[in-house]
Amino acid sequence: MTVALLTDKYELTMLSAALSDGTAHRRTSFELFARRLPEGRRYGVVAGTARFVEALAQFRFDDTALASLSDFLDRDTLAYLADYQFCGDVDGYAEGELYFPGSPVLSVHGTFGECVVLETLALSIFNHDTAIASAAARMVSAAQGRPLIEMGSRRTHEQAAVDSARAAYVAGFTGSSNLEAQRRYGVPALGTSAHAFTLLHTEESGPDEKAAFKAQVEALGVGTTLLVDTYDITAGVATAVEVAGPELGAVRIDSGDLGVLARQVRAQLDGLGAEVTRIVVSGDLDEFAIAALRAEPVDIYGVGTSVVTGSGAPTASMVYKLVEVDGVPVEKRSTHKESHGGRKQALRLAKNTGTIVEEIVHPYGRPPAGQPDETERPLTITLVRDGDPVADLSLDAARERVTFGLESLPWDGLKLSRGEPAIPTRMVSPGKR
Amino acid sequence: MTVALLTDKYELTMLSAALSDGTAHRRTSFELFARRLPEGRRYGVVAGTARFVEALAQFRFDDTALASLSDFLDRDTLAYLADYQFCGDVDGYAEGELYFPGSPVLSVHGTFGECVVLETLALSIFNHDTAIASAAARMVSAAQGRPLIEMGSRRTHEQAAVDSARAAYVAGFTGSSNLEAQRRYGVPALGTSAHAFTLLHTEESGPDEKAAFKAQVEALGVGTTLLVDTYDITAGVATAVEVAGPELGAVRIDSGDLGVLARQVRAQLDGLGAEVTRIVVSGDLDEFAIAALRAEPVDIYGVGTSVVTGSGAPTASMVYKLVEVDGVPVEKRSTHKESHGGRKQALRLAKNTGTIVEEIVHPYGRPPAGQPDETERPLTITLVRDGDPVADLSLDAARERVTFGLESLPWDGLKLSRGEPAIPTRMVSPGKR
Repeated sequence: MTVALLTDKYELTMLSAALSDGTAHRRTSFELFARRLPEGRRYGVVAGTARFVEALAQFRFDDTALASLSDFLDRDTLAYLADYQFCGDVDGYAEGELYFPGSPVLSVHGTFGECVVLETLALSIFNHDTAIASAAARMVSAAQGRPLIEMGSRRTHEQAAVDSARAAYVAGFTGSSNLEAQRRYGVPALGTSAHAFTLLHTEESGPDEKAAFKAQVEALGVGTTLLVDTYDITAGVATAVEVAGPELGAVRIDSGDLGVLARQVRAQLDGLGAEVTRIVVSGDLDEFAIAALRAEPVDIYGVGTSVVTGSGAPTASMVYKLVEVDGVPVEKRSTHKESHGGRKQALRLAKNTGTIVEEIVHPYGRPPAGQPDETERPLTITLVRDGDPVADLSLDAARERVTFGLESLPWDGLKLSRGEPAIPTRMVSPGKR
Repeated sequence: MTVALLTDKYELTMLSAALSDGTAHRRTSFELFARRLPEGRRYGVVAGTARFVEALAQFRFDDTALASLSDFLDRDTLAYLADYQFCGDVDGYAEGELYFPGSPVLSVHGTFGECVVLETLALSIFNHDTAIASAAARMVSAAQGRPLIEMGSRRTHEQAAVDSARAAYVAGFTGSSNLEAQRRYGVPALGTSAHAFTLLHTEESGPDEKAAFKAQVEALGVGTTLLVDTYDITAGVATAVEVAGPELGAVRIDSGDLGVLARQVRAQLDGLGAEVTRIVVSGDLDEFAIAALRAEPVDIYGVGTSVVTGSGAPTASMVYKLVEVDGVPVEKRSTHKESHGGRKQALRLAKNTGTIVEEIVHPYGRPPAGQPDETERPLTITLVRDGDPVADLSLDAARERVTFGLESLPWDGLKLSRGEPAIPTRMVSPGKR
């Protein structure tokens, strides 16, 4: 399936106008970046890079696509699109890197025609995936090593759900409930049981929770997770251990005061000898609720709505701006929306302890001189050359980068409260060194 | 492409357990509804119905899907899924209807196995599309007849973007920038121009806005919309009219104080004789900003981020609950999450003036007796019978329902401020008439 129509109409009408006056063939650089982090956030996590690079190869206008454009595009533009294949270069941050306001997350280089038509797709992918990964990383950090399961597919668009699962996994979630994310990306599929299964076991005489638990344990083994809060939690836990024995894998609590209930259930399980049985909690958890449960005997968090909606910031607000034309830096000049012209690269300074201190965005090929007591790490890597992917796009590598990035933050960068970006960004203008 | 893996793992493990103890073949009814509207909202707009009904036919497990499930499902379950095809019935609200807390937006009837596997897909579609349509309807109402263009594709997942365009169109938007939404659903594709096109026309001597406008007008005609705020708006407007003449279609302002600028630009355009030239405004508009511009000479609103993110409510928080098993009503009993058991229908009462007064949710086939001074309209229609679609699923019909629905609200139901649902919902329990 082509992705070429996942595009705003104006990109193609601009292309048409640029083809007719010849400017479509000018060499350009476009830059994808966020002017700011979501309000109060201290860092963001880049996600979507691999998806974008892989989508480039599918960005072709097939006959169906061209037919749907023929009522508003001229013959020359349609012919251009029929031959379209991105042959330019892409640089950018590796997937899983932290980013800050102004970080040049992606740079696309090619003719204006080649680059302009990618605007919507690039932004859709990065704005979505980055929003999810950035929220998810805060949850991972709040969970302090306890596993998190992404189970929010039902609260977002069915295709966004697949990539939400992927982005949460990049950020450090253990897995997701989403089966397509497992098939497409290898994200471990995890799951428990729903109230419907318990309710299904209702006879004319009334509910039969025990029959439900029996059926589940017989089919899935004692390592399964039984959902104990359909009727009465204390009775549910007792029945669960009665049916599965003390080797029961886990119980899930999906409602009520999770902290209080986790303590009660832990005591009850221990009293029944089910000391190895773990407690999964779910139900409107976000990073704050996760942090608030740190002191409680919770073993696994199931997170839904908050992670797939970016926990209050469903889009990363990234923009895709033309920054250079035939070697000349360009920028918009109207109020409050300044862009910095010129192709750029970035590096990140850290103390020798590894704690990061500053993001430096500098003109391409001209890094500023370093300081002896700081280490600098280049952030901009080559992703695509002459249209072909050249970088390691694996999810495992992206996950490692998030872990490394979170460890490199100054301690107050990990605070969940509203604050400023954890490190400042210095923009080195083309005139200075 | 199959949609069957857009599913949470636990649905299939529950199916496995239910197949092994025989309960998978029990007759069930599942209900999709929202316990509440997004905070402060006075009404919601149902969207996604047609998409769900059409997805049902594609909900088949092909070899690729089955292969990806074979590591955790037993042979019987895999065989069941290989033959899976939904053959049950679906009732629900027509797309475009208003809904309120507890409204039975969708009811799915069939065996437990048939119905349980649809949970995630049904919720993903309704939670996304309804969130967008509900936000979009508030914007339509705030715009008081002025056209709205959806241009938020870049701020949401690339596939969610297509269905956001569709949902905004259902709610009354004039069209969308998204080309795939035009191809797939016939949503009118609309567009203007971006700053990149003006910036592209930069020579070594500096910016050349005039060349950009000339190229656009030559390629797209004087009816086009020129973006006038790349450098200086007053100069931009003068250049636009100089290049296109007084028949210029429109100018777009994308930054700054839109109200003040719209007035200045209107005066300038009129002074230049361009009285027919319309003013398009865009830039972080939501329903409140749209309402605030009512008194200004704005002709068209371009809306991005706020509509595709549901203007603060990116998911409609609908749930999909088992309500009946073999004719017996069932419901969860734990705190704060009550469901009302039993298969239901709904009707809406209105004064004879047409203003709605109450939503009544009643047991299936047992509507309460009416009042002489009120009209009642059944809301539950048949959507699918024995697996086949039977309803009018057209977008035009859905759009008309939204228009009708907004007209039927009591006047304070249209207020943008936070409030209670515009009408109360009465739940008629199975015991009462």
